[in-house]
Amino acid sequence: MTRTTTSGRPSRTMSHNQTGPAHGGDLAAARALFPDAPEPWIDLSTGINPVPYPVGELPLSVFHRLPSPADQEALEAAARSAYGASETSQVVAAPGTQALIELLPRLWTAKRVAILGPTYAEHAHAWRKAGHDVVEVTRLSEADAEIVVVVNPNNPDGRVIDRPSLLAEAAARAGEGGWLVVDEAFADFEPAESLAPVLPPNAVVLRSFGKTYGLAGIRLGFAIAKPDMAAELRARMGPWAVAGPAIELGRRALSDRDWLADAASARAADADWLDALLHPVLGSALGGTRLFRCYRSPAAPAVFDRLGRAGIWVRRFEHDRELLRFGLPASQSEWSRLTRTVGDGARSPG
Amino acid sequence: MTRTTTSGRPSRTMSHNQTGPAHGGDLAAARALFPDAPEPWIDLSTGINPVPYPVGELPLSVFHRLPSPADQEALEAAARSAYGASETSQVVAAPGTQALIELLPRLWTAKRVAILGPTYAEHAHAWRKAGHDVVEVTRLSEADAEIVVVVNPNNPDGRVIDRPSLLAEAAARAGEGGWLVVDEAFADFEPAESLAPVLPPNAVVLRSFGKTYGLAGIRLGFAIAKPDMAAELRARMGPWAVAGPAIELGRRALSDRDWLADAASARAADADWLDALLHPVLGSALGGTRLFRCYRSPAAPAVFDRLGRAGIWVRRFEHDRELLRFGLPASQSEWSRLTRTVGDGARSPG
Repeated sequence: MTRTTTSGRPSRTMSHNQTGPAHGGDLAAARALFPDAPEPWIDLSTGINPVPYPVGELPLSVFHRLPSPADQEALEAAARSAYGASETSQVVAAPGTQALIELLPRLWTAKRVAILGPTYAEHAHAWRKAGHDVVEVTRLSEADAEIVVVVNPNNPDGRVIDRPSLLAEAAARAGEGGWLVVDEAFADFEPAESLAPVLPPNAVVLRSFGKTYGLAGIRLGFAIAKPDMAAELRARMGPWAVAGPAIELGRRALSDRDWLADAASARAADADWLDALLHPVLGSALGGTRLFRCYRSPAAPAVFDRLGRAGIWVRRFEHDRELLRFGLPASQSEWSRLTRTVGDGARSPG
Repeated sequence: MTRTTTSGRPSRTMSHNQTGPAHGGDLAAARALFPDAPEPWIDLSTGINPVPYPVGELPLSVFHRLPSPADQEALEAAARSAYGASETSQVVAAPGTQALIELLPRLWTAKRVAILGPTYAEHAHAWRKAGHDVVEVTRLSEADAEIVVVVNPNNPDGRVIDRPSLLAEAAARAGEGGWLVVDEAFADFEPAESLAPVLPPNAVVLRSFGKTYGLAGIRLGFAIAKPDMAAELRARMGPWAVAGPAIELGRRALSDRDWLADAASARAADADWLDALLHPVLGSALGGTRLFRCYRSPAAPAVFDRLGRAGIWVRRFEHDRELLRFGLPASQSEWSRLTRTVGDGARSPG
């Protein structure tokens, strides 16, 4: 548990925080584990859209000058419309959802926090770092806590909690000063159960830009919250929190509904294809979204190993070695390499 | 004073924080004040280098993928070298110095904080938001506080505190758990008194990237600190805090000593020229750096007004209406418009 002391330098206990949860996208780890694998690696370890929104030309001004309040307001208006946030909510841009995941736990002290898991590990890590009492629960009904955190759809298994259940969780905590945090990082293609249009006063919704639009490097995410909470988040971040290129690209992309619809169709087809390709070796998908698929199989460790030796990096999990998460290949050549490698395995398992 | 409550929603007192200090670069304010001024406005209200480091081509990967630890390490190594930080210190990249200014006060509770002023107003604002007892002092010898904040060279007047005085301040607080924070936002062209090479254990140095390199929009700044403090800052920011384009441009620019040397000469010539141009109307410069000049004169309000009516926006200050800060014109046409406007005023004052 990390706390700052009330005198002197920050507590020495902080040093353990440098080692956070493992993540997809770490090809250095891949190369260390499979030093003889062929290059280039195919990175299927993330849930980032492999076909990014076109970056196009960016005016020099977005690099040169400080972003203006008007720039950020235009971005937030585009996000409000894209996410269907109600007029009584505010949409607050941040330099990546991770920044909000780090910031939210600092708004309270010593709460009981329940996280619906297993899920994206940064939530539990951030609440624990801020000194809260965190438990992971596997059902919402077990969440005996003041603050409940739900990733919806869930990462890695794609489990979706329906909107009425989420509203009930928020309502149950409203009288006691409790809060519901819903991380909708993967809801852009599956918005049916999003709380954005019906946000309760004691809920915060997080939306990620980079995954759906394939622009994770620009660092852009949003909180949707009622005005008091939105004001607190803005105050904590201070001015110019979001970079000029992120504001410009975010505004363009979030206003482009045709691109989103086309990407939704294309990624759904990719996901179906991936399920069909992996069925002979890993069985039916446990779940997922249009940007990643999750499989549980006793064959998972052998498949992870075979893919790794072939230079294909997928996501495994400490808590369950029979689980694998696959992102989508980026190109025909990546699909071909994956198909060949899986086919070899199907003929000669293990 | 803002605090989060230990139960329920964050305190309602937070709402006043939405209104922070005034800043340069706000052309919406300029247009509101001088609605009849000719467009385009010439913005001399910031200290951002008007001649940016060339952005050039950026690979798609810096937008598409999450920045890797190796990317950030390469950036921080370039920054370490550029700033001359000692091997016993760590250089921590952040999404803009402002993010660090917001973050630092959250590492302690209820300290007495002295800020050497008048100076960049976000420091006092951030420490007050975090609940500290903040006083502004005009001499270091008056700083009877556990934490001392110095902007060096100072903004807006360019006052420089020498290194021995800063080291003495840190040493005086070392035994009592006190800290010295030195914001070296404008030290790149004037590094002689920088604490980066001789950092005491209880000091944090802040360095800004965007001003010197004219790339304020990408949001990049650094803390230089000993390992414990550096680890705490990294833990508070979490992974992927700095955007891919900022990492790439920062690494390139901070490795380019020729560009820095040329820019230092060119901006020094600009600053001299500005002083000469304004001398007839505002007298000798009170001080400044190679990126901005500061003048105190009874004529300041009239000069501000004349420039504003001509579409030239300079920085004035609530605390002293006789003070004006000028950034550097970006082009020959901006120099010409400024020269004409000032010349008209010199012939017909007020």
